Formats: sequence, structure tokens, C-alpha cells
Amino acid sequence: MICDMNTKTFWLCCWMGASALFVRAGNVVEQWGLFELTCHGPTNGNPFTDVQFSARFQAGGLSAMRSSSGSAVVQVRGFYDGDGIYRVRFLPDQPGVWSYETISTAPELNGLKGELTVVQPSASNHGPVRVAHTYHFAYADGTPYKPIGSTCYVWQLQPESLQEQTLQTLAASPFNKLRFCVFPKRYLWNTNEPVLYPFVGNPSATNWDFARFNPKYFQHLERRISDLQKLGIEADLIVFHPYDEGHWGFDRMPSGADDRYLRYLVARLAAYRNVWWSLANEWDFMKEKKESDFTRFGELVAQEDYAHHLLSIHNGSKLFNHTLPWITHASIQNGAAVEDPGRAEMYRGVYRKPVVYDEVKYEGDIESRWGQLSAEELVFRFWNGTVAGAYVGHGETYQSADQVLWWSKGGVLKGQSPARLAFLKSVLADAPPEGIEPIDRWQHPEYGGQAPDYYLIYLGKQSPSNWEFKLPKPPQGKGRPPADGMRFTVQILDTWNMTVTSVPGEFVLKKLDNYFYADKNGRSVPLPGKPYQAIRLRRLP
Amino acid sequence: MICDMNTKTFWLCCWMGASALFVRAGNVVEQWGLFELTCHGPTNGNPFTDVQFSARFQAGGLSAMRSSSGSAVVQVRGFYDGDGIYRVRFLPDQPGVWSYETISTAPELNGLKGELTVVQPSASNHGPVRVAHTYHFAYADGTPYKPIGSTCYVWQLQPESLQEQTLQTLAASPFNKLRFCVFPKRYLWNTNEPVLYPFVGNPSATNWDFARFNPKYFQHLERRISDLQKLGIEADLIVFHPYDEGHWGFDRMPSGADDRYLRYLVARLAAYRNVWWSLANEWDFMKEKKESDFTRFGELVAQEDYAHHLLSIHNGSKLFNHTLPWITHASIQNGAAVEDPGRAEMYRGVYRKPVVYDEVKYEGDIESRWGQLSAEELVFRFWNGTVAGAYVGHGETYQSADQVLWWSKGGVLKGQSPARLAFLKSVLADAPPEGIEPIDRWQHPEYGGQAPDYYLIYLGKQSPSNWEFKLPKPPQGKGRPPADGMRFTVQILDTWNMTVTSVPGEFVLKKLDNYFYADKNGRSVPLPGKPYQAIRLRRLP
Repeated sequence: MICDMNTKTFWLCCWMGASALFVRAGNVVEQWGLFELTCHGPTNGNPFTDVQFSARFQAGGLSAMRSSSGSAVVQVRGFYDGDGIYRVRFLPDQPGVWSYETISTAPELNGLKGELTVVQPSASNHGPVRVAHTYHFAYADGTPYKPIGSTCYVWQLQPESLQEQTLQTLAASPFNKLRFCVFPKRYLWNTNEPVLYPFVGNPSATNWDFARFNPKYFQHLERRISDLQKLGIEADLIVFHPYDEGHWGFDRMPSGADDRYLRYLVARLAAYRNVWWSLANEWDFMKEKKESDFTRFGELVAQEDYAHHLLSIHNGSKLFNHTLPWITHASIQNGAAVEDPGRAEMYRGVYRKPVVYDEVKYEGDIESRWGQLSAEELVFRFWNGTVAGAYVGHGETYQSADQVLWWSKGGVLKGQSPARLAFLKSVLADAPPEGIEPIDRWQHPEYGGQAPDYYLIYLGKQSPSNWEFKLPKPPQGKGRPPADGMRFTVQILDTWNMTVTSVPGEFVLKKLDNYFYADKNGRSVPLPGKPYQAIRLRRLP
Repeated sequence: MICDMNTKTFWLCCWMGASALFVRAGNVVEQWGLFELTCHGPTNGNPFTDVQFSARFQAGGLSAMRSSSGSAVVQVRGFYDGDGIYRVRFLPDQPGVWSYETISTAPELNGLKGELTVVQPSASNHGPVRVAHTYHFAYADGTPYKPIGSTCYVWQLQPESLQEQTLQTLAASPFNKLRFCVFPKRYLWNTNEPVLYPFVGNPSATNWDFARFNPKYFQHLERRISDLQKLGIEADLIVFHPYDEGHWGFDRMPSGADDRYLRYLVARLAAYRNVWWSLANEWDFMKEKKESDFTRFGELVAQEDYAHHLLSIHNGSKLFNHTLPWITHASIQNGAAVEDPGRAEMYRGVYRKPVVYDEVKYEGDIESRWGQLSAEELVFRFWNGTVAGAYVGHGETYQSADQVLWWSKGGVLKGQSPARLAFLKSVLADAPPEGIEPIDRWQHPEYGGQAPDYYLIYLGKQSPSNWEFKLPKPPQGKGRPPADGMRFTVQILDTWNMTVTSVPGEFVLKKLDNYFYADKNGRSVPLPGKPYQAIRLRRLP
């Protein structure tokens, strides 16, 4: 039989006998790249359910494999990709030689061994995103990752030209995360059938064989995940959603089919470093599922996913219990939580995890009140979340004669917020790598930063002509307090007009009272008397 | 040996031989009253640790006891009360004849049997408070309980005359819950030593025998819990607190001593129907305890407390995980969460339990910014919490030459908020028994009530001269929506000046748009143009 190793850039072959092993030189993949082992196996019966196929990966050469002093063995589930092709994919997390050995109930897929050489990642590859500093994110190589996400629920199931347009739009946008659904969606402005379906069956009869996946559907999904990866965009994949309501029935599969689908999805996608798992959109609106189903799903994904991708679940009106250990960050819909930074901070303390307000209503003009924010209001919400130490998501719902709304289908962006979110992104890129923390959350939630080195103070809808230079003590046990003599530069950020204005000279601290420090000469900061101003302070060495 | 049954109103005796049983007639206690069995036993060694003593209680007479078809057996731990006296206390939860049998490692305390007759509760006895309707409370007999709590941390450890004054003040106050500590407290304005100590030892050397309790200390605590019970006040007992910092060392006992103390406390107090357990005040400020210690404490109390009293834990700056199953309600300190109803609602959705903001800063004038709210601000915060479907706690910190601040020592109330909280209490007493729920939390959090029958709309610091009569649809799946033709009466509540003004005539609904109903004649409600107004709507049959 024939086995192919497919890496992102190399296609290689090995010939293996039942007991002999030949590995060609050049089986090379980047750290956090996608290694793929392709094998041919049985086509009779139902290969999706009849054949068990997986591989064990271990750092070190084959000669070291199974030695008692060897490194940890990673067991990775493979999957059937149709046409007699079986694949197992792997996301190696460290450079060097790795070895593998397959395990299968099919003899011809069992006991295949080989090596791969994992090389240093290329410049744009920082690995998967992880939680960092409790409330924030960083890529696996330590590079900070500060999500500016958007939502295009089923962009990849639209006509090809529209998909390409969406990718072009994304390339020019500030967005570095995109929420979208694995399954097709049926909802307002989105009642077209997809070109492909995830299962084998008869679409017109909605008669699906949930035990037989349609590999082409998932291959296409993978292509789009790769496209996003090239753009530096994390794919926040929505695994289940309620916008089916029995039309196809993917929202009400039997539990065995749900679990099989999850295993298949993880087997296919866990080697893509930019994948995040969002178990559901509006989980509580899925009438045919119980809360305990999602707990089972979460535990299953956490167990299957050897690569430990970020894992969360998005709510309608009922929050999921984000304190559960398998949830890496809180993905939250709340229509009001980022109306001020004091509110935006509250869930952080509850969950002690990153809080991503993935849905805070959308910029747009549709009749539904969740889709008619002004651009100013959405940008305002992003900034409130930012200084509260949380992250906010974008969506756009401008009415359109062609029924193409960004939020659902992608296409082009029509709103005014993305440019301002690019400005915010530039501010975040220049902020402390540890993330922005609330400084005085019960008194002055407008202060974010890393005390006493960096402050970002957001004045929101206030339009003062002057800001009293004052720095609060950070909360007990958080950050270092300010001190007399510390010197700061001040910049005024017009978050709507996207300007940065430096205030001449330095500000020098002097203790004001038990809670605050001010400038020793009583200087304050002149402001333009317009809304949406922020003040950035940096401490001089 | 001699055994006494002590009920709240009856003192009775029985004489028991080692195998014979004689029960006097008249061994009667109210449902949810305190039944006490008093026995004499060993005094040698350390009776607190050497003797195990408990009793099994079962509904039904002795003849039925242990029959396989019998009712559930409740095993209740007894305790040593000094001077050779052992007691076991029981809170019977249903009327009828009950039987009991003791179990002990001391032969003379083992196998004692008897019966008690549990009669209907008296008019003021509604049983212990339980969670009701997910976010609210009711007594065991179904009577709604709507907490208006206050805090006097160590009132019961002050001079006797001050304790009596505190009780008199409470009797004339609106408060129906009081937070206070079991252990003495040492903090600002509160550095006097207590008259009694909870353990045997040498106070000046802070040399305690944590294995020997001081029964007089706990007897006194019980007297004060009974005093509060007579006033209809729940005793929200703080079991551990950080305001010791090693001065006595009750904040840093070994884990065995902590657990023994918890078992002793539950054995002594669980039969008092007005007891709530607050595992700690500012748990995260207890430097010598880990979070896992409090989890252990909570599990222990939940297991020991057969009567299932309300059980929570209060935070400093770090919220405890109130999703844990043994936590009945979220007791929260947050200095900003009740600054508006939109914020106040947020923890409800997280915890799906009653949210009690036990500390929201205090009315007072001390230097610390947690103790300098105006009365107006504190009352404002209570109302924000109320329409958000949560509960808020009072505290008072007015500076005083005699160092007696209500918040710590009790005494008299000097502030302006209690009268307004009495007004709020009267509004709550007249509100739906199911509690007030937020009606439109992401859009108009000022609307609380039970749609479509009762609405309480709080306008806070706004001072409009007019209120547009508009009723929102309740959130998906919550309450019934309004409908055309529904008729309402309207009252204006001046929450500061404590007046209720009825608006003449009726308001009749007509659909306005997808989200709101208004008056069919476009009527609006005239307002006095002052802050702190609320509007109460009641649907006419």
C-alpha cells in the first residue's frame, strides 16, 4: 500500500511493507505546521465507522520510540477522507525529529512507522493561540495575540466569488479572528441552500446518513481555514448552532451522531494551528439539546484535541458555566455589558479567564435591535471592553438589496467601525504584552493599563476640555503602585478620528491622597471637547 | 443519668435506664422550633474530642422506628456544652410524632430513645429561609422572604448595654437579616478585646487550646441568635474572617481545628431556624487560607447541616466560584455593581442563584472610600439592585467619638437610609411573591417586575417631568408578553421622600412596535422632575 506525507509545502512518499520500513529524506514540516500522513485502506462497509485509525507521535527518532525514558506519546485520531484515503494529521509543538506509528483495526493501516523532521517555524507562524496572563492571549511562541474579531456565520457556504470577495475584504481589515459555522445556517437574510452538505444524503428529503460524512464539505472548510491562516486570522469555528430548526436537522442529531461528528471534526482540524472551537452559537436557543449535552461535547473535544485549541461556547440569553475546567475563555453574547467599562469588567472576576464579548449587538440598520448600532456606538463598546481588560467582537448588519449582510455571508464591509478598529488594533499592538488590566475597577473603571508603567484612560461619551492628571493606586495585590517622582509622557488618542496627539513635556507624580497621585505642578491635560477621546500615559525610565 | 428535653417553651425531663425507656408526656416542640435533648456524660479527658455523640431522628413513633417502610432517618451530631452536659439539637421540618435514638462512644449516652411531638408552628414561625424561584427566597412555609440586610460585624461581643441597644435599634429598623462574625474582630474602630473567647486558653499569651471550646462563648452567641429570631431577623453568621491577622490566630488554625470548629458550630446552631452560614467575610483576604480550604469548609458544612441552611461566602476583591453546588446564593461584595440595574443583573445570569450584594460600600463619612456613601447613594443602589432582581445590603460608617460605628459594633443608626429602606421593604412586601425579575435587561434595565401583571420601573438619578408609558416584551421564555387591551393602574413612588401617588384613571395597552406596547391614547405619566422616582404598574383584572 501507499502512504503519503503531506506537509504544507512538501509532498512525499514512503513505501512500507507489513514489517519493513522505508522513510524518504525530506519529510519536513514546520513547528506548528500541519503534518499529514495519507494512507490507502478499506473502502467496503462504512469506512467512517468500521475502521479505527490513529497514530502515536513521539519526539525523537524511531530508535528512541517506546524507550522508557522517551518523551510523551501523543495519540492522534485519524479520519477517512473518502475514496479509500485515510489520513492522520498532526500539529507538532516542538522542533526536531519525531517518530510515529499507526494503529488500526484494518491490518493494512496498522503498524506503519516513520519519522518527520520538524523545523523552526517561518516568520508568520507563531503557533496556536493560548491563554496568557489569566485574562489575555498569546501565540504559543509567546507573541501577544489581541483579538479583534468579526463574524460571518456561513461565508464559506456562499457562491465561490462571494467567498473570494470576503477573503479580500478580510485581508484589508483589522480582523484577526472570524467566527463562522461548520454547519449551514438558515435564518433571516440567509435562506439559500449551501452548495455542499456535511453528510451523505438527499437534501430535498432532508434524509441524511449521519454515519457518512461528505469529505468534500470538510475539505472545503479546511481550504477556507487555511486561507484565513494565511491572512493571520484565527478561525473561531462554531460547531453547533440553532439556525436550522429541523430544516436539515443538524441541530437535532442523535447523541451518537453528535459525538461522531465532534470526533471527526477534531481529527480533521486540530492540526490547523488557527482553529478555535466554539461549541455552539446561542447554545441555549438549541431547543433539542440540553445543557448537559454541551458539557459532554466540551469534555469530548477537550479529550480528543491533543493540541489544546482554545475552547468555549457562545450564549443566547443564558450564559454557559464558563467556570468549567475545559473552557479556556468566556465567549459571551451580552447586548449591554460593554456599555461601560465597569460592566465590561464584571465577568472577568467571575470566570478568571479571558472574556471575549463576541456579540455585543452589531453595526447596522436592520429592524432587529441587536443589529442597529451606529459605528460610533460599536467602537465605543470596543474601547469600553478594552480598558476593562476584555475583548470585543464586531459584526455588521446593513440592509442590502442583494441579501448579502457581512454578519451572515461576508462580502464587503460597508460600515465605519472597521477603520476605527484598525486604529484600536494599532494601539493594542503598542500596549504592554501582558495585556490591559483594569486599574481601579470599583471607582474609576475608565483606567486600564499596567500600573505604573502604562495607562490607557477612555473617556467615552464625555466631552471634557480638560483631564485632571491623576493616577489611582491599583487594587490590592495587582500591579505596583505609583510613587512620587515617576515621570510620564501623555498622548491624546482620538479614537473616532484616529489621531494621536502628544502633549508636550512630562508629568511628574506627587501623592495627592490615600488613593491618587497627581502631577506635582498640578498640570492637567487639555482635551478637544469631543467624545471618544482616550489618554495614553507611558512612564519614562 | 438524666436527660432533659429543652424546647423553646417546654423544659421536660425523662429518666432512662440503660435499656428501659420512659418518656414523659408533653415533650412538645413547634415545627421548625428547636428541640434539645440534654444528657449527662463523661467529664474526664477531653469531652470535645474523646466522645462521639449523635442522635437519629425519624418521623413517626418509636414503634415505627427502623421499620423498613419508615420515613427517612436524620442523623444529627450532638455537642459537649461543658460541665458534663451533652446536647443534641434538632429542627423538625414536619409536624407529628418523631422518635429518636442516641448513638455514642460513651455507653451512658448511647441507645437513649424517646419521642417528641411536633405541633404546628406559631404565627411568627415560618421556618428557615430557602431559595425560591431560582433568584429569590421564601421561608419553608412558602411565605416570601425579601432580604433587607445590614451588617454589625461583632455587635454581640461588645459591652452588654451596647448589645441591648443594638437589639432595640434593630427592632425599630427595616432589617430582616444581619451579618455578623462568630469570632472576634480586630480592625479600625474595633480594637477592643471581647469579654469572652471561643476557645480555652490564655488571651494575653494568645495560647489557645483549639480542641477545647468555651461553651459560654457559644451559649452567648446562641442567645443573640434567639434574640434576632424573635425580631424576625435572619442571622447571617460569618464563620471565618481575616480581621485577626494572627492577633488571636483564629484566622490561621490548623485544618483539623478548622474542621472541628465547623462541626461544633453546625451541631450547636443548625437547629436555629434563622441561621445562615457565610463561610467567610472577604475570603480572599485571609492570607493563611487557600481557596481549596473554603471549598472543603463548604462541603463539610453542607454535609453536616441536615437542615440545609442557606450557605454562601463573601469576597474581598476576588469572587468565589458561586456556581459550586453547595453554595445556595451568591453573597457578593462589589463597590460598583449596583451603580445601575444593568450591572446589578449580570451576576444573576452567571450564577443562576439569588444574588445578594451584601456589601456595596456603606453609608457614612469615614476616610475609606468604601465607607463614605451618601444616604441617597445607598438607597439608589438598593433600588438598582431591586429592579434587577437582586438584593442589596446596608451598612453604616459614620465617624463617632465613642468609636461605636454601626457597621462594626452596632448601637444606634445615625443615617438617613434606613427609613427609605423601610419604604422599599413596604414596596417589596406588596410586590409579587415570585420576586421581581428584570424585564428587558439588555435594553431597559430599569424595568423590573413580573410581566405582564406588575412592573416596577426605577428612574434613579434622572429627573424627568414625564414618563412615556411603554411596556417592553419580556425576554424570550420569561414571563408572558403584554397584549392589546390590557389595563393598568399607575403609581409614582418617590423613593427618597417615601410617598406613593396614584395617577388617575387607567392606561390601556396598544402595540407600538416589535418591542413595545404603549397606552392606546398615547397617555404618558407626569412626574415631579425630581430624582429617585419609581413607577409602579399593576394590571387590572
